[in-house]
Amino acid sequence: EDWRSRRTVQIFQYILLKWAFALIIGLSTGLVGIFNNIAVENIAGFKLLLTTELMLKHKYYKAFAAYAGCNLGLATSAAALCAFIAPAAAGSGIPEVKAYLNGVDAYSILAPSTLFVKVNVIGIIFGSIFGVAAGFVVGKEGPMVHTGSCIASLIGQGGSRKYHLTWRWLRYFKNDRDRRDLITCGAAAGVAAAFRAPVGGVLFALEEAASWWRSALLWRTFFTTAVVAIVLRGFIQLCSTGTCGLFGQGGLIMYDISAAKVVYSTPDILAVILLGVIGGILGSLYNYLVDKVLRTYSIINERGAAVKILLVIMISLLTSICSYGLPWLATCIPCPADASTSCPNTDVSGNYKSFQCPPGHYNDLASLFLNTNDDAIRNLLSTNTVKEFHISSLLIFFVAVYCLGIITYGIAIPSGLFIPVILAGSCYGRLVGRLFEPISKLDVGLFSLLGAASFLGGTMRMTVSLCVILLELTNDLLMLPLVMLVLLISKTMGDMFNKGVYDQIVKLKGLPYMEAHPDPYMKHLIARDVVTGPLITFSGVEKVGNILLALKNTGHNGFPVIDEPPFSDAPELCGLVLRSQLLVLLKGKAFSKDRVLAGNKVLRKISELDFAKAGSGKGLKLEDLDIQEEEWDMYVDLHPIANTSPYTVVETMSLAKAAVLFRELGLRHMCVVPKSQGRPPIVGILTRHDFQPEHILGLYPHVRFQQ
Amino acid sequence: EDWRSRRTVQIFQYILLKWAFALIIGLSTGLVGIFNNIAVENIAGFKLLLTTELMLKHKYYKAFAAYAGCNLGLATSAAALCAFIAPAAAGSGIPEVKAYLNGVDAYSILAPSTLFVKVNVIGIIFGSIFGVAAGFVVGKEGPMVHTGSCIASLIGQGGSRKYHLTWRWLRYFKNDRDRRDLITCGAAAGVAAAFRAPVGGVLFALEEAASWWRSALLWRTFFTTAVVAIVLRGFIQLCSTGTCGLFGQGGLIMYDISAAKVVYSTPDILAVILLGVIGGILGSLYNYLVDKVLRTYSIINERGAAVKILLVIMISLLTSICSYGLPWLATCIPCPADASTSCPNTDVSGNYKSFQCPPGHYNDLASLFLNTNDDAIRNLLSTNTVKEFHISSLLIFFVAVYCLGIITYGIAIPSGLFIPVILAGSCYGRLVGRLFEPISKLDVGLFSLLGAASFLGGTMRMTVSLCVILLELTNDLLMLPLVMLVLLISKTMGDMFNKGVYDQIVKLKGLPYMEAHPDPYMKHLIARDVVTGPLITFSGVEKVGNILLALKNTGHNGFPVIDEPPFSDAPELCGLVLRSQLLVLLKGKAFSKDRVLAGNKVLRKISELDFAKAGSGKGLKLEDLDIQEEEWDMYVDLHPIANTSPYTVVETMSLAKAAVLFRELGLRHMCVVPKSQGRPPIVGILTRHDFQPEHILGLYPHVRFQQ
Repeated sequence: EDWRSRRTVQIFQYILLKWAFALIIGLSTGLVGIFNNIAVENIAGFKLLLTTELMLKHKYYKAFAAYAGCNLGLATSAAALCAFIAPAAAGSGIPEVKAYLNGVDAYSILAPSTLFVKVNVIGIIFGSIFGVAAGFVVGKEGPMVHTGSCIASLIGQGGSRKYHLTWRWLRYFKNDRDRRDLITCGAAAGVAAAFRAPVGGVLFALEEAASWWRSALLWRTFFTTAVVAIVLRGFIQLCSTGTCGLFGQGGLIMYDISAAKVVYSTPDILAVILLGVIGGILGSLYNYLVDKVLRTYSIINERGAAVKILLVIMISLLTSICSYGLPWLATCIPCPADASTSCPNTDVSGNYKSFQCPPGHYNDLASLFLNTNDDAIRNLLSTNTVKEFHISSLLIFFVAVYCLGIITYGIAIPSGLFIPVILAGSCYGRLVGRLFEPISKLDVGLFSLLGAASFLGGTMRMTVSLCVILLELTNDLLMLPLVMLVLLISKTMGDMFNKGVYDQIVKLKGLPYMEAHPDPYMKHLIARDVVTGPLITFSGVEKVGNILLALKNTGHNGFPVIDEPPFSDAPELCGLVLRSQLLVLLKGKAFSKDRVLAGNKVLRKISELDFAKAGSGKGLKLEDLDIQEEEWDMYVDLHPIANTSPYTVVETMSLAKAAVLFRELGLRHMCVVPKSQGRPPIVGILTRHDFQPEHILGLYPHVRFQQ
Repeated sequence: EDWRSRRTVQIFQYILLKWAFALIIGLSTGLVGIFNNIAVENIAGFKLLLTTELMLKHKYYKAFAAYAGCNLGLATSAAALCAFIAPAAAGSGIPEVKAYLNGVDAYSILAPSTLFVKVNVIGIIFGSIFGVAAGFVVGKEGPMVHTGSCIASLIGQGGSRKYHLTWRWLRYFKNDRDRRDLITCGAAAGVAAAFRAPVGGVLFALEEAASWWRSALLWRTFFTTAVVAIVLRGFIQLCSTGTCGLFGQGGLIMYDISAAKVVYSTPDILAVILLGVIGGILGSLYNYLVDKVLRTYSIINERGAAVKILLVIMISLLTSICSYGLPWLATCIPCPADASTSCPNTDVSGNYKSFQCPPGHYNDLASLFLNTNDDAIRNLLSTNTVKEFHISSLLIFFVAVYCLGIITYGIAIPSGLFIPVILAGSCYGRLVGRLFEPISKLDVGLFSLLGAASFLGGTMRMTVSLCVILLELTNDLLMLPLVMLVLLISKTMGDMFNKGVYDQIVKLKGLPYMEAHPDPYMKHLIARDVVTGPLITFSGVEKVGNILLALKNTGHNGFPVIDEPPFSDAPELCGLVLRSQLLVLLKGKAFSKDRVLAGNKVLRKISELDFAKAGSGKGLKLEDLDIQEEEWDMYVDLHPIANTSPYTVVETMSLAKAAVLFRELGLRHMCVVPKSQGRPPIVGILTRHDFQPEHILGLYPHVRFQQ
């Protein structure tokens, strides 16, 4: 149904609701972002304060016990949430959102039921807070995207069925497209809230999340992220008065590097190119290792909730040992005379951590390890502090973070991938900057930013959105050409070895994702080749019993309807009916004794609204029907509900072209019709699964190598 | 042909060439941008210097004569270029690029012939230089986009046919998709070069220019604009040593407003909302008036080159009179004590122009009028100079620029729309800022930026790309939330009244643009309804004479091929052949005396390369064929060249759905097949024109009002 053909009042309702939803999504995601930040900063701040105080009293073992204990407690809570209450909250969530926006409905965590999604949101929010506060090398941006999408999904499904008015208005959103639009807005809002990067959020949704894109959506997504930005701004103003507890400037990451002068010449550019090449390789190695670790973990995690939690506890202990133990390897460094902040620092966050050092000295490794991830990144990006970190310290931190990041993703906590990658990348960049110090004039803080860019490019494989996110994070447009250069190089390097990390995870989860381009071997096949399984068709006026049997015995969601004599001269394809529509029709019991056309009186009996796509888990089920024995032999007219203009392809159509049609138009069922006359009017139905490489290559193993 | 099924060396050639082309487009567009800027700054600088010197000697009439004379000379040169040599260079160029990227091939100025495009590029470059230097209220960014696209088009067509090697490699680009990709890169490079806004350029190409978008393209466009940014940066460094003549900082617009502190509270936001609302209305009024003026001008311009030039001369005189005459209305203002630049200023560019004022005083209107457009915008955006411009002066300048902008677009010079709109908008914004001074703490320079945003939103109706362009121009990310807010409001206001200015111009030019969404009335029609005209089909093995006749007597570009007995049991649709392919086949003369299948030996005779889509104007014509009388009765086998998998729709398919299929897949021909059996296997062919509202509503005038 095209909304422009509706009545004026309906159009008004629809548009009003559309923008109201965008507003609500922006507001809620912004508020969740704020809550998340305040909670993390306060919990982690308390933990670090406790540890630092004990260390100042030289009670080093007690301090470790306190630190590791806090971490362990938080980690166990997060794991318990994920293991028992909301299993779908684990992981990044971005791959699931991506798959949903590609049209993968059934498996997606956004679909099952409203309750499920609600629990999930709680699980993600608290899981993420505990996980990040527990000192894991994980970020909050993946879970934020997930949260934003879940909120959008909840809103679209109409969480408020009680209020009849609201629910009636919501009927406009009971279709795939409007729901997908909402979830795209949610994903954009998530990135905007996590990084305070509204334009970056829009571009992320465009470049990574969405599979189809319309100009109108750009416009609405933009509004949503603008709302998020305004909410965050208001909150930061509020918190600057000191009302948010331990919430410091670390809360909402924003690394201001504008203090450094951006001047570069040829040797700098050569250094930057080298940095990009190696960063790209390390990034794709990261993807490779994450994939391997995930495969191992998925086997371990299958053994039950207890094993899941045990794994989390082990990783948490390992992280605590690294964070507390490794700084002991560093030697104390005298405080610089011109330090802009207090040195040594015994505060919650900040640079120049005292650790075990005597007064007037600081421990550079502790400044990185014994901090929240956000603060560690801020320290790495700090400009005009060339000598602050020893090369050896940077090397130790880099190796530790790189490895911890890889083994942490996949355990049963909500875990974003951006922050670990930025952390490892900026450390790598600073290391390169230190090594190139003799020949390069670029500040090591800027090198650090470029290192983060190279790692992000090497793992995520986005370009424009990452570039804009990094610029919004660092508030320095003058770095633009260098950031662009590094992203281009590292993405190119990464693409030589493997796919982007989110694509890998989508594949690993076995989601039937439709790629934008058909694989080359599909050119050697025709549409008929991949049609499998028995085709079940209905007659235009079909026996109730036949329909019930078909619904019971198959899992098909779409059935072709064929007009046969006496309703037409020869058998011809009348249209396509969906399982959900059949269930509504049967529930309405518009049956007749004889095989006659019922006309529009069926629709008068059943409101058109009932045919709208139901919210998650709210649809009718076969068990809900109450068909009497004697009704089995009655007839029901399928014409009123059949989609009479299904997209069709001729059986000899190249499979590649059929795949393009299927993907571009976002279809769920495609009818294959015979080429020659005098045969049954339909050859089969193609669905998303029929285009999956596994299915095609299973049928024709050798087609891959055919030239 | 899918490139992934090619041999490795071919894939390598293709990828190498693709990126090399992106590099060349970036380099050339960057260099053109530099040349353009240096030329404009030097010519306009010379003109202004001359005028100022004469005024310092109190020779006011001589000064006017010199000023108006220079303007007139430059304007006449620009007009002569456009009227006699490159007629297609006039106007903005963005609508044409937009239409080309939508698939409008035939009418586009990018298509006709290589020579035509080459002349056009010269015409645009010099016409734009002369036009901007002549003091017209026009910008250079539309022409830059046009130039970028023309360069891309030239490169893709292979301007270097002489070198056999290069030409062979170019065969991969002889198709619609790769050419469109190149032109998208060119358009992005144009914006990047005009505004020094690489990310903005990419987003402009995405949001406004392109009709189809692929992730891979984002990535290549990004590379192109990065190259442009690096070229521009190198050049600015070079020019900062003073080697570029009168080229000052005004050359490449970049308005640094970061000096102002961005602090705002509720009253500011209310003021900004009001500014957005009125700005949106004024912007859509601008569109309305531009449309009216364009319609008038197009009638005037039809009368010949002399009339065109006369119109340009009149507008030039009017502009000169306004620029030189109106500043006399302003009273002299004493120089502020804390002026950051010299005051009064007798230099080429800059603030605080002396004009007729005694020493120690300046004329505020002259600072706006007697300057290049770039410098006037810079003055309007200058921060911490609240009282610099009188409210009355701002009002006079606003009215003058608003009206001049409207009547200037459409005359025979290359004219961008961004700069006039930014100029009027920033003046409007500063005016609003002055009026709200008592209650608002926001700097008037920031108000000025928001005013420019509101006008841009109200006319262009882009969101994200404008936002990013403005941020890249002003280098101040802290303004982001406010700029977003203003853009959203003004676009919403504008959309209530009319379409965006580029859409209006596309429509005015009568280009058959395919909208992203089918119009609502299309739902009440089926595909068969709009099939018109006699259908010409060929048999699988057809007589040469029939083909020649069909090609001669019709303008069709696609013909269905139907297999008939004895080649099949019943008539069935074999495929679709294109006019260009038929011409190549006939040229190859693979004829046979009898009606038999020729098999693949045809393709052995004619290289596959010859069938690739020819460059502009390079294709075979009917007159090039040399078919003897006796060959007319011979047969030719069409099977080898027919596209055997054309996209088809059943005749009863809803026209709206058919339109979606046509638009989303970027088709040029769509076959309509019958629903019932026993009829000829094809009902007709739909092309772009059959989906145009004019065509449909011409056939069914009442369908528009049908509910």
